[in-house]
Amino acid sequence: MDKPKACIGHKIIFLDRVDSTNNYAAKRFKSGGIDSGSVILTDIQTNGRGQRGREWQSDAFSNLIVSITADLNLWKINSMISLNHLTALAIQSFLLKHTENVKIKWPNDIMIKDKKAVGILIESYITSSQRKSVIGFGANINQQNFEAPRATSLSLATGKFYNPKELIYELIETFNHFIEVYHDRGESWIQELYNQQLWKLKTDHLFKFNDQEQYGKINSTTSSGELVVEFPNGQKSFLNGQVAY
Amino acid sequence: MDKPKACIGHKIIFLDRVDSTNNYAAKRFKSGGIDSGSVILTDIQTNGRGQRGREWQSDAFSNLIVSITADLNLWKINSMISLNHLTALAIQSFLLKHTENVKIKWPNDIMIKDKKAVGILIESYITSSQRKSVIGFGANINQQNFEAPRATSLSLATGKFYNPKELIYELIETFNHFIEVYHDRGESWIQELYNQQLWKLKTDHLFKFNDQEQYGKINSTTSSGELVVEFPNGQKSFLNGQVAY
Repeated sequence: MDKPKACIGHKIIFLDRVDSTNNYAAKRFKSGGIDSGSVILTDIQTNGRGQRGREWQSDAFSNLIVSITADLNLWKINSMISLNHLTALAIQSFLLKHTENVKIKWPNDIMIKDKKAVGILIESYITSSQRKSVIGFGANINQQNFEAPRATSLSLATGKFYNPKELIYELIETFNHFIEVYHDRGESWIQELYNQQLWKLKTDHLFKFNDQEQYGKINSTTSSGELVVEFPNGQKSFLNGQVAY
Repeated sequence: MDKPKACIGHKIIFLDRVDSTNNYAAKRFKSGGIDSGSVILTDIQTNGRGQRGREWQSDAFSNLIVSITADLNLWKINSMISLNHLTALAIQSFLLKHTENVKIKWPNDIMIKDKKAVGILIESYITSSQRKSVIGFGANINQQNFEAPRATSLSLATGKFYNPKELIYELIETFNHFIEVYHDRGESWIQELYNQQLWKLKTDHLFKFNDQEQYGKINSTTSSGELVVEFPNGQKSFLNGQVAY
């Protein structure tokens, strides 16, 4: 076997059905059954999970439900936040090849025309000698109907239908490109790029926090991952889960 | 229930037998079955794990085999390294109440009179909204015979026998003291204390790395957790797993 590198896609595992691709990937990755850079896909996920333990629903055979294994020591990625930036930028960039108006909703949703098209859940297992992450995401590709009012799919945006299993190769290429960009340009460059691609950047928008609602404008995110919003009465910064918008 | 605090021991779970207290704790902690600050003990561990996937063996009913759950957001602990420092210092301090010559062998073994008495394995599950750690350790208390030549127990050091289930309350108290110290004095203060308590600090000792052996002296550890050793031909710093001594 070749020496493992900081790239993905040398191994692709297609599963007909699984409880959660993240659970499957984490279990096999931790036990050494699969190595870093493996890509796991499924047609049907019976117990998908999203941010903060929320359920993640997806029509069968319609979408890209993917988990990627990443050895952060091997990838030479210092922080979880950088991995988050890199992942969001890669998925955004992949979608931009097919449609316009794709933005990153802090911390890690991808929006097409102001509706959510992708959710990302990165889970990491860390000890003093290991840093193993599983990057999970559900990208709505062909799905036409959603229970959530603010959800969309690539197909709804373009009027076309896609073969999700073909799209994965494009996504792998884009992802590997952003790993290279991270190594060539560095952490703060990737953060700056992420900041520029934020949904609702420098635009008046309603923010809900602490039982209050206020209009403000997103300024940027901090190096520790907080969202900085400019309100008429001053700036506030929020951790993930502290604000809805 | 009281609001959860950055302390341990409000819940203690005694298990007769378990595959690994860390596995048990991680599973229940991630699913919400137990909360932060729970202490899990067992008399018999059938599949104990140590650093870098090594097996951890312990005679039945002889020792303290413990896992502690920690919500790092709740504990306001910024880095895994600080949690490592705090844990090593707490266990060292607990042993110092019973015997002398207790030192911390970088990164996280505890030595009594130059022999290993405690191994620590901290495992963390991290997403963008959660930072859950399980602090596992095996402290040799009453065990008299070891396969490993450089292992010892508290009993071998003092000539006394102990009730491990009584000692756990002492350990909980010491642990909570060090969480407070971390909050009062801060990260760099804790790191400095850890550096002062290192086994073989500023003492000539043989180090093995990259198929070579060289005498050197430990200077300190860095804020990113590397061991800094002074050799006749200059300083070298090592990550966990890169040097044996």
